[in-house]
Amino acid sequence: MSIKITLPDNSVKEFDAGITTEGVAKAIANSLAKKAVAGKFNAQLIALNQPISEDGALEIITKDSADGLNVLRQTGAFALAAAIKALHPEVKLGQGEATDDGFFYDTDRQEGQLTVDQLPAISDKINALVKANAPIEAVSMSKADAKKAFADEPYKLELIDAAAGDTINGYQLGDFFDFEEAVVLPSLKDLKHFTLLSVAGAYWQGKSSNPMLQRIYATAYFKEADLEADAKQRQEARDRDHRAIGRDLDLFFVDPKAGSGLPYWMPNGATIRRVIERYIIDKELADGYEHVYTPVLANLDLYKTSGHWAHYREDMFPPMDMGDGEMLELRPMNCPSHIQIYNHHIRSYRELPLRIAELGMMHRYEKSGALSGLQRVREMTLNDGHTFVALDQVQDEFKKILRLIMDVYEDFNISDYTFRLSYRDPKNTEKYFDDDEMWTRSQSMLKGAMDDLGLDYYEAEGEAAFYGPKLDIQTKTALGNEETMSTIQLDFMLPERFDLTYVGKDGQEHRPVMIHRGIVGTMERFIAYLTEIYKGAFPTWLAPKQVEIIPVSLDEHLDYAKLIETEMRKAGLRVELDARNEKMGYKIREAQTQKIPYTVVVGEKEVNSAAVSVRRYGESEAEEMPANMFVDSVKAEIKNYSRDGKQKRGAGKNL
Amino acid sequence: MSIKITLPDNSVKEFDAGITTEGVAKAIANSLAKKAVAGKFNAQLIALNQPISEDGALEIITKDSADGLNVLRQTGAFALAAAIKALHPEVKLGQGEATDDGFFYDTDRQEGQLTVDQLPAISDKINALVKANAPIEAVSMSKADAKKAFADEPYKLELIDAAAGDTINGYQLGDFFDFEEAVVLPSLKDLKHFTLLSVAGAYWQGKSSNPMLQRIYATAYFKEADLEADAKQRQEARDRDHRAIGRDLDLFFVDPKAGSGLPYWMPNGATIRRVIERYIIDKELADGYEHVYTPVLANLDLYKTSGHWAHYREDMFPPMDMGDGEMLELRPMNCPSHIQIYNHHIRSYRELPLRIAELGMMHRYEKSGALSGLQRVREMTLNDGHTFVALDQVQDEFKKILRLIMDVYEDFNISDYTFRLSYRDPKNTEKYFDDDEMWTRSQSMLKGAMDDLGLDYYEAEGEAAFYGPKLDIQTKTALGNEETMSTIQLDFMLPERFDLTYVGKDGQEHRPVMIHRGIVGTMERFIAYLTEIYKGAFPTWLAPKQVEIIPVSLDEHLDYAKLIETEMRKAGLRVELDARNEKMGYKIREAQTQKIPYTVVVGEKEVNSAAVSVRRYGESEAEEMPANMFVDSVKAEIKNYSRDGKQKRGAGKNL
Repeated sequence: MSIKITLPDNSVKEFDAGITTEGVAKAIANSLAKKAVAGKFNAQLIALNQPISEDGALEIITKDSADGLNVLRQTGAFALAAAIKALHPEVKLGQGEATDDGFFYDTDRQEGQLTVDQLPAISDKINALVKANAPIEAVSMSKADAKKAFADEPYKLELIDAAAGDTINGYQLGDFFDFEEAVVLPSLKDLKHFTLLSVAGAYWQGKSSNPMLQRIYATAYFKEADLEADAKQRQEARDRDHRAIGRDLDLFFVDPKAGSGLPYWMPNGATIRRVIERYIIDKELADGYEHVYTPVLANLDLYKTSGHWAHYREDMFPPMDMGDGEMLELRPMNCPSHIQIYNHHIRSYRELPLRIAELGMMHRYEKSGALSGLQRVREMTLNDGHTFVALDQVQDEFKKILRLIMDVYEDFNISDYTFRLSYRDPKNTEKYFDDDEMWTRSQSMLKGAMDDLGLDYYEAEGEAAFYGPKLDIQTKTALGNEETMSTIQLDFMLPERFDLTYVGKDGQEHRPVMIHRGIVGTMERFIAYLTEIYKGAFPTWLAPKQVEIIPVSLDEHLDYAKLIETEMRKAGLRVELDARNEKMGYKIREAQTQKIPYTVVVGEKEVNSAAVSVRRYGESEAEEMPANMFVDSVKAEIKNYSRDGKQKRGAGKNL
Repeated sequence: MSIKITLPDNSVKEFDAGITTEGVAKAIANSLAKKAVAGKFNAQLIALNQPISEDGALEIITKDSADGLNVLRQTGAFALAAAIKALHPEVKLGQGEATDDGFFYDTDRQEGQLTVDQLPAISDKINALVKANAPIEAVSMSKADAKKAFADEPYKLELIDAAAGDTINGYQLGDFFDFEEAVVLPSLKDLKHFTLLSVAGAYWQGKSSNPMLQRIYATAYFKEADLEADAKQRQEARDRDHRAIGRDLDLFFVDPKAGSGLPYWMPNGATIRRVIERYIIDKELADGYEHVYTPVLANLDLYKTSGHWAHYREDMFPPMDMGDGEMLELRPMNCPSHIQIYNHHIRSYRELPLRIAELGMMHRYEKSGALSGLQRVREMTLNDGHTFVALDQVQDEFKKILRLIMDVYEDFNISDYTFRLSYRDPKNTEKYFDDDEMWTRSQSMLKGAMDDLGLDYYEAEGEAAFYGPKLDIQTKTALGNEETMSTIQLDFMLPERFDLTYVGKDGQEHRPVMIHRGIVGTMERFIAYLTEIYKGAFPTWLAPKQVEIIPVSLDEHLDYAKLIETEMRKAGLRVELDARNEKMGYKIREAQTQKIPYTVVVGEKEVNSAAVSVRRYGESEAEEMPANMFVDSVKAEIKNYSRDGKQKRGAGKNL
């Protein structure tokens, strides 16, 4: 019997029934057959050697396609499991699969889980299987037979029970059998360029109530060059990962036993945070803000009035019953607290714009799976501010805030950002706070302000908050993800809900507009971001330690080293004298590892000329200069928030 | 029928049954009868005119006794209620009674509560009642009759229902009737020297779930001189009361609706707090501390390990169930958090003493009745620190901490303090952490340190904590109450409970000693204390506003005023330019009311000579000086933490 196969170019060829994708490819061209790794028959992926027994459309999946790479990685997961069972028959298998950037397999071993230490041997075993080049055969069996075959594999039994239908499909390689619906290669011969990457705990089926298995991560490519490029990119990501840098530079840690998503800031990280906190407060004070401290707890009623409890409850911590009828709640946002400040006095138009700011600690309930380093936490401190303005002040205040944001960005050397202006959806105005005139006027004020400032922006209709239009400033993380760094949001709703008023020139009560604004966001997320863009090499003004002093000889140069240490301390520098009984080269290397901006070496020559030999982080050459000149230049660098010792202030945009 | 009355001198007199205390007094001496205000029959207070019908012991209560004063004040409360009902029949009465320093009555009026504005008229009405000198008669009635009499008084009805027995006792004055068990005078004639003081909200029967009534506070004395002395003392207390000053200077507020004991720091108070926080952190950094930030929440297990949950639970907030098996607790103390920091690395003897410090926010559950301004709060930020030392470092570290404390005291001009060294009870050593050698050695180290430093101290045996000996530094509040400002406590227990170790020179693990220390205590309590000792006139370095600039004429001198304002801002001063369209004298008085350290007036003369006319707070004369000289002198004053513009550094004790 013959069947008709329609190819992607719509040509139709006839074959004997039972022909495989490989056979079809060979019939077209030998070169195609060499690249083929699977087929897509009637839009469904099939194995290269699966017989085709009916008419249909066939696409030949080749090595250079995404589907092809996926088949390779699915095969990799299968081979990984085979190698693990060959070496460690006592391991219980979970599941494995291909992902966007590699593959993994979950494992469980009662007597000591697999660790990275076992990866080289497993890798060798996979290579041996590749070399043996045995065929991988598709196998189907009944559920009952599958249960017998996996009698000793509890996770597999769970999967068999959960599977639909009565037949279990899988693959056999030598005496290893695994069941899976995904398509794999007919043999391991193309699995040459793979790496086993890491091992990390993962809850069985992603549920935190299930046991924790060990997930072995790996990746594979058809070409060696691709694998190398991938390794380089992974290294780059690791180099920038704030969690890894945080560990290396001893910035912070999270101890899940003491509480998930609750970071402890070690002295180094705390120094960076303190410098930033003082910086931003001083910047805001100079810009007309009044800083306050408000409690992290409030009566739940406050969040009922604000609407947070109704609309945001799942992100809030559980209320605490204080026993005397009072329910206290850890605040999820600072707005109601600042409204308390506003409402504490009768306000006059003369006080507007009234700018209230705070480093406000907040608590948000995030699922433990979503938590990550400093980036996603449950306790955070927001560089928060609310300004209360009359409607006709919105535009000027908006510009003022925007200028402050861009000024701050310049100090931190953040240059890669875009503006996103969000309006209400003109076709669904009933979804928003009900005041057409307010929307029309305020949206045009924001747009006008952006135009006045000559800034490019993206206009997003329908992306405003319920309570008013907003501007988001988007930055890119080191790994290319977009995130909102700063925001300016108009709010017409909270002033209504809390009945905020001010006495106007006319002696009458008026309703102010509230502007929520964040400059650098939460301390946690901002420092995670900075850690990644700086790769841990913080500019001098932020660096936990700014200068490391190393005497050439402890016997001869320690006194001088102490002298300049004292001078530097007096000048306000964060300095450390390494007086340990270690070799000089070792000390210098360690200072480099710690990414300390300046390593200062003092020996005979320096002692005699009141000089220092200075090496800046990342440079290979040291420079000789008078000690006092060095101190002055570092002080100037700190004062200018300079990124690399060069003057950069004054080059900013002129808004 | 005659009865036998035994007098306090054990003499026995016979009287006709029905004799009153007044009658007995008259029988003894007319002078005694004039002073008598009530009797105490068989140890029970009775009214002066209550007939006595049986044998018993009688004490005559006179005007010069505490009981006598109490009867006067009880009468005052009764008269206050009578006057209120006469003037405002629509007011519903709660309860009134005498207190240790006066009396009060609770009132409720649906259409606008009583305020201080109504007090003068009420005071006049009481005087009119006194003048009328009508008799006050004791009246008893059945509960049913009482309910009829008070049909329109819901709070009284509640009290009648709650009363034991079937009879309600009270007093009648003209057509005013009030029921109370307390004894009052037979007339108002002695209620001459009274004052109505204030009005404040008070929950009915002290329960926050009940309605808020208005409590009218008053006091009364038999003698005018006593009332005057009381007024003077109240004024003094009010002048120093941080709650009143906090209101006047807009430093902070507490809003029970938003949460009891949870202060909101207004910009002025927040400025003082921020300056102190930066000051103390910088001081500690310079003294070898490493500052950290640790979370306010932790898994409850941490406080189980530390022992807080077992021994301190009633002062802790209720745990929050996070739903995934995690119970989170607001920390009552920071020690376990700092232990987390210590334990994050393996520690070496080279790192000791390791000094961890933090402005650590904590939460403690205090009953709402115990809360007071900034002095007793539920959320507080402690200037906390823990140093981890080897046992043989205890003495040196103790001295170092003590020097830091005394240095800080000098900067704040705190000179009235005493030392209190607390040891374990030598007769009950089993009550304490079980390590005799540790106790003996460490107690003698602390004593030795105090002696070395030449400091006087009080030794308190049996007042050590369970976990180790301690030094408390006691200060006196403005109102004469002693309180612990600073503390240095050795702790042998937590290092055991958390299994803290360091690797010694010998390569072996050793147990460190932990020293808890607080320098200025919580920000809340410290600023309450400073507010009271400074009477709100904060020294320049702490003052929310340091300089107020007032131009003589807005038309002619505003430009110059702005110029020097800019100069002062550049110099880092907190300066305000009063450019309102108000009279100069008014502006100057307002600056004095705000207790701003410097009022700078600029007019023709100053413009022409680049000068300023400076008036220091509290002085009546202004001084003319060059503007730049003034700025320099204020900068120097701030740098020296000077109390009154005079140099004071360097005069310190030399430890």
